[in-house]
Amino acid sequence: MKRTFDIAPWHVATKEWDPQDKRLQESMTSLANENLGMRGFFEEGYTGDHMQGVYLGGVWFPDKTRVGWWKNGYPKYFGKMINAVNFMKLIIKVNDEQLDLAKQAPKNFKLDLDMKRGVLTREFTVAIGGTDMSFQFERFVSAVQKELVGQRVQIKNQGQNDAKVEVTSMIDADVYNEDANYDEQFWNVLSKHANGEYAELTSETKPNDFGTPQFTVGMQTTTKTDLDHVGDGTDAKDAYNNFAGTVVAGQTVTLEKRTVVVTSRDFDSQAAIEKRLNDLTDQFDAQSFAELLDPHVQEWADRWTKSDVEINGDEGAQQGIRFNLFQLFSTYYGNDYRLNISPKGFTGEKYGGATYWDTEAYCIPVYLGVANPEVARNLLMYRYKQLDGAFVNAQEQGLKGALFPMVTFNGIECHNEWEITFEEIHRNGDIAFAIYLYTKYTGDKSYVLNEGAEVLTEISRFWADRVHYSQRQNKYMLHCVTGPDEYDNNVNNDWYTNLLCQWTLKYTLEVLAEVDDQVAKKLDVTEDEKRHWKGIVDNMYLPYDKQKDIFPENDGFLDKDLKPVSEIPSDQLPLNQNWSWDKILRSPYVKQGDVIQGLWDFIDDFTKDEKKRNFDFYEQFTVHESSLSASVYSIIAADIGYEDKAVELYERSARLDLDNYNNDTSDGLHITSMTGSWLDIVQGFAGMRVRGDQLHFAPFLPKKWDSYQFRQTFRGRILKIRVDPDGTKIELVSGDPITIDLAGKQLELK
Amino acid sequence: MKRTFDIAPWHVATKEWDPQDKRLQESMTSLANENLGMRGFFEEGYTGDHMQGVYLGGVWFPDKTRVGWWKNGYPKYFGKMINAVNFMKLIIKVNDEQLDLAKQAPKNFKLDLDMKRGVLTREFTVAIGGTDMSFQFERFVSAVQKELVGQRVQIKNQGQNDAKVEVTSMIDADVYNEDANYDEQFWNVLSKHANGEYAELTSETKPNDFGTPQFTVGMQTTTKTDLDHVGDGTDAKDAYNNFAGTVVAGQTVTLEKRTVVVTSRDFDSQAAIEKRLNDLTDQFDAQSFAELLDPHVQEWADRWTKSDVEINGDEGAQQGIRFNLFQLFSTYYGNDYRLNISPKGFTGEKYGGATYWDTEAYCIPVYLGVANPEVARNLLMYRYKQLDGAFVNAQEQGLKGALFPMVTFNGIECHNEWEITFEEIHRNGDIAFAIYLYTKYTGDKSYVLNEGAEVLTEISRFWADRVHYSQRQNKYMLHCVTGPDEYDNNVNNDWYTNLLCQWTLKYTLEVLAEVDDQVAKKLDVTEDEKRHWKGIVDNMYLPYDKQKDIFPENDGFLDKDLKPVSEIPSDQLPLNQNWSWDKILRSPYVKQGDVIQGLWDFIDDFTKDEKKRNFDFYEQFTVHESSLSASVYSIIAADIGYEDKAVELYERSARLDLDNYNNDTSDGLHITSMTGSWLDIVQGFAGMRVRGDQLHFAPFLPKKWDSYQFRQTFRGRILKIRVDPDGTKIELVSGDPITIDLAGKQLELK
Repeated sequence: MKRTFDIAPWHVATKEWDPQDKRLQESMTSLANENLGMRGFFEEGYTGDHMQGVYLGGVWFPDKTRVGWWKNGYPKYFGKMINAVNFMKLIIKVNDEQLDLAKQAPKNFKLDLDMKRGVLTREFTVAIGGTDMSFQFERFVSAVQKELVGQRVQIKNQGQNDAKVEVTSMIDADVYNEDANYDEQFWNVLSKHANGEYAELTSETKPNDFGTPQFTVGMQTTTKTDLDHVGDGTDAKDAYNNFAGTVVAGQTVTLEKRTVVVTSRDFDSQAAIEKRLNDLTDQFDAQSFAELLDPHVQEWADRWTKSDVEINGDEGAQQGIRFNLFQLFSTYYGNDYRLNISPKGFTGEKYGGATYWDTEAYCIPVYLGVANPEVARNLLMYRYKQLDGAFVNAQEQGLKGALFPMVTFNGIECHNEWEITFEEIHRNGDIAFAIYLYTKYTGDKSYVLNEGAEVLTEISRFWADRVHYSQRQNKYMLHCVTGPDEYDNNVNNDWYTNLLCQWTLKYTLEVLAEVDDQVAKKLDVTEDEKRHWKGIVDNMYLPYDKQKDIFPENDGFLDKDLKPVSEIPSDQLPLNQNWSWDKILRSPYVKQGDVIQGLWDFIDDFTKDEKKRNFDFYEQFTVHESSLSASVYSIIAADIGYEDKAVELYERSARLDLDNYNNDTSDGLHITSMTGSWLDIVQGFAGMRVRGDQLHFAPFLPKKWDSYQFRQTFRGRILKIRVDPDGTKIELVSGDPITIDLAGKQLELK
Repeated sequence: MKRTFDIAPWHVATKEWDPQDKRLQESMTSLANENLGMRGFFEEGYTGDHMQGVYLGGVWFPDKTRVGWWKNGYPKYFGKMINAVNFMKLIIKVNDEQLDLAKQAPKNFKLDLDMKRGVLTREFTVAIGGTDMSFQFERFVSAVQKELVGQRVQIKNQGQNDAKVEVTSMIDADVYNEDANYDEQFWNVLSKHANGEYAELTSETKPNDFGTPQFTVGMQTTTKTDLDHVGDGTDAKDAYNNFAGTVVAGQTVTLEKRTVVVTSRDFDSQAAIEKRLNDLTDQFDAQSFAELLDPHVQEWADRWTKSDVEINGDEGAQQGIRFNLFQLFSTYYGNDYRLNISPKGFTGEKYGGATYWDTEAYCIPVYLGVANPEVARNLLMYRYKQLDGAFVNAQEQGLKGALFPMVTFNGIECHNEWEITFEEIHRNGDIAFAIYLYTKYTGDKSYVLNEGAEVLTEISRFWADRVHYSQRQNKYMLHCVTGPDEYDNNVNNDWYTNLLCQWTLKYTLEVLAEVDDQVAKKLDVTEDEKRHWKGIVDNMYLPYDKQKDIFPENDGFLDKDLKPVSEIPSDQLPLNQNWSWDKILRSPYVKQGDVIQGLWDFIDDFTKDEKKRNFDFYEQFTVHESSLSASVYSIIAADIGYEDKAVELYERSARLDLDNYNNDTSDGLHITSMTGSWLDIVQGFAGMRVRGDQLHFAPFLPKKWDSYQFRQTFRGRILKIRVDPDGTKIELVSGDPITIDLAGKQLELK
């Protein structure tokens, strides 16, 4: 654990400068707008250890993975969002000395991410070129103009003499990925030019052997400054404009850089990309920096109106929940159904910038509560549009129907561990379950009865082919799977996966009974198929242990050496850093909820006693070494009345990155895990449920808090729920009157 | 299946030339002498598709494997025997046209591997340079001088006019591996020179990031010819001598090339390598080609005296068994305990030229029957000398004692599939079992009571730490293992592995009771340890199914969808080429014997009925997609009286490579599987067993055969056993009188 930023309700800010924390600071001060984003690296360059990262949504490259013993059904590559051309670069010289905080120690340093406005500011004063100069950098990634990034630098001469200031505003394609199996660079420069008004560079990902797309990206920067334009240039891999001037003592000069980024995801030719670049540049040129920034700030204000959570009496918690929502919304806000939410968003290279089951299992439930339904719907559309890829994935395994990928950009599986790739198939059920959740929360059946029915049918066809019938047990089974608890691999009859399989088939049959003839005709589910599915639903094997009266995670689980986590010496934790994979696999230790995940999905389908017994059993073996784990346990703990436990577990995820809890935030933020704190507050502490068509709450107030208040979107309304020692107040902020259930009592809201 | 060579008792020869079969021919005509070897590629070069391969025993390179999701305990690299510098090269020009069978179609082509003498000959006539020339190439890899390779070319002018013939005798370091994760070359040239008498080139493997050894290799060639020496040269990566002359019509010119290869495995400085090169070159220079060849041929004659198997009435079988023994002996003949038997020997790049459990499980039982005990003893010493590496492998998994590697050069595990690397731990038991076999066959206890006791103790320490106690079952268990049947991965309680674990602990306790005080003191096995081992022996869980009265391969096996192989459409076989790994893992299909392997090891410990029931059960699910599989089934079939089945199964391995049965011999020969046919004949058909101190036979004669006859080494004797329709005749070829058991009757041999 390491806290490098001050606690404040709307800011992630620090006045400390420590090069040791550089990567951590870069992760924490990332900005993005779903379409593109970057780590908070310094635009002026930094020769010390750091991690430059500019990323473009949906622009990726297939990394070589075919080593050793490739087998049929293994993916051929590992997809990775690659480090994009760096358009942020602003090389600054004062009296011929280049600004570089690795060399000049800053004074009055201040780094400030304003979460309310979505603006990152950095200020400092340095002794440079024989004088003192102060700098203020601002940047934003526009939440309303997906192609736009704005930067402003103000440079003030704090010395006694004139200072010569030179600035080179550059687009630099000389970039590498840290994590790649290629030693080469990924970008070829197609064209570049620079003149006084702008610099432009178009690049393309290098050809690959895997038949996956190449991407063309055009970038155009304009620079407005009261320095003089003194020249331009291009090198093999860059294009730039030079500015210079004399800054007299006490004077401040300003430089604004606007960047427009257009990719071949939106325009299919280099000419079209260039036209779009020019059009947007012209449009933005006519606007001042404030005019570009204002709608961005307004958009963030709107987002907060729908989603803000206020916690009184715990500023750390307050900051945590806002930081989590800020970064989640930066990563995805439902503008483009071709994009999704990578576990590290635009904040680092880990997880390859690809889509995981995190989206359906953890993010959609949050968006359904804090944003317009379109956000979740677009995430559902993402999967629908990738059905063709899911067919391929199933075919690769010799199976029918659709197997959605564990990791993907385009629907094709691109992760390279077999025990995950084609065994962690619960994801197919999680995707089905998200359709159910969307329908339940929004009341909108248009998706489930059309695109959703198709997704569900094809997933069910997969399940029906993937199960086998055990003559010995007279039951349908799923052998060779991996559950969410990835500390057990290739197990037989993972309770959670079997349960989701059974549920999906049942739900699909229900949905098929409702679709119209045209959809039914298209899906062409035969009566035989339905009978077969019904047979699986009725005869699915679900592990149950009589003696302990619990659901064993899988067939072999209870034969393990069942020593609780409390008996592991603390210097051996976390296990994944201290134990071999061999010991971990054989151990009873649970990385993240597996049975608990199932209890969460179907929280109203189990008795309190069932939930208690299973929670008590599994909690003692759970090490929460997935950042997705503790928050789900917190919800179940709250549900069964373990309030203190619920709060304790909540605290593990609430400030995961702000406090660098897992000591890996320098690699990037845990974007999808950031949903956990919202889920814990709303589903856990406030007991929010949707039962039938009705919204339910049954809140408690954590002991440390004075009060908390959150917004909840539900079927066209925005509700404000406030919980304090006097009880719970629920207010209808907008929308039609509605009756909700508050701790068992009907409450009419107008 | 494809048979490209004629059937003959002592020759693998063909008069057919088909470029399609080039790689296959190269594999089949490989030569080696344990220390070095090469595929039968053409020394004059060949521009068509082929696979050049020269390999040096124990010279390897760590291939990069760290992609994706590396976890604690995973090996950091994959060791590979690399393609060595090509010292065979003889560029030949006739009237300025270069000889290249990809361009000049040969007439009167003949390729002949003489297995009796260990010599490869190739003859043909081509139209080249406006004339007809015939060529005869000979080569041998000396079985008595490990550093020596001899080549001879005879070139005859079959035309009417004089022909200008030029030959460049070269050492060429410009070589690549086909299978490598590096795009670069592995060899850096350290020095090179050439003059009229010889060419020399010293090279070193490039530095690697893994802390594994670099190898230096010196090569020196001398050329004797009746052509004129016309010049020498070196390029960046080669050294060569040029010869030329006019060959008049009808004249034959001869060129002999001798190569000496010395590596840093034997000499620790470049200077020492060069001295050795010069000394050997001088020594061989004083000898004629015949003088170099003769002792090599004599050595092969000696080998055949101990090992030859004669089969009358089936020439294909006759050729098969000799080819198998020839290639096995070429790969290893016990001269160097630092070397071992790679599954593909010196015949290709697959399996990386490394050591597998094949050595102990399949090769040692053969060498014990057909060679001096020193051969098997050196293979046991190989493991003893690598104990330090085995300690590291266990420590990497957080376990005590020794875990011998699945794949290795130096004792350190270098395979990169976790489900194999640290799960296929039965190998530890197989290594222990080989010590038992050696002792039983040879009567020599000097190994088991010294080095062997140490190996057994450390293996037992590993087992005792690797098991866990299941409170639920009150039994010791092994979870998360992979048995020999690699079509099931990461299973719980693999019957074979559990059995070997139990047996090893029991045997170690027996051995420890016999060791002298000094050894006991060194091993320092405490009474507590012994008690713990005894406890495991007494309470090991061994899967047994009451209903079917068989040993289930592992815990989940009988829950599978138990359809026999006969129900799989034939176009889906072999499964590993047609099914996804997902389907294979979930299926009941057995790649190679697992329970059957255990029945073989402990063949006298199970009743005939037990063996029958288990054979009948598993045979229906076994696809024999390991080349090691069918031969073991054949032995069990013979044991339980299924004679026809035994012969049928024998036939699958007897000519595996000669008939390209698995359609992959072009990659190299299945060296370790070649042991199968000998085991089937001797242990299967002839029922050879060692019981107590006595040798037993209980032969039958396969219906198709007129008779068979083999040699058997046993405790200082060589026996000749002949089986024909009149019965079995056993003759003592050499050694002291001995009483053996023939089908239950005591037979005194003098």
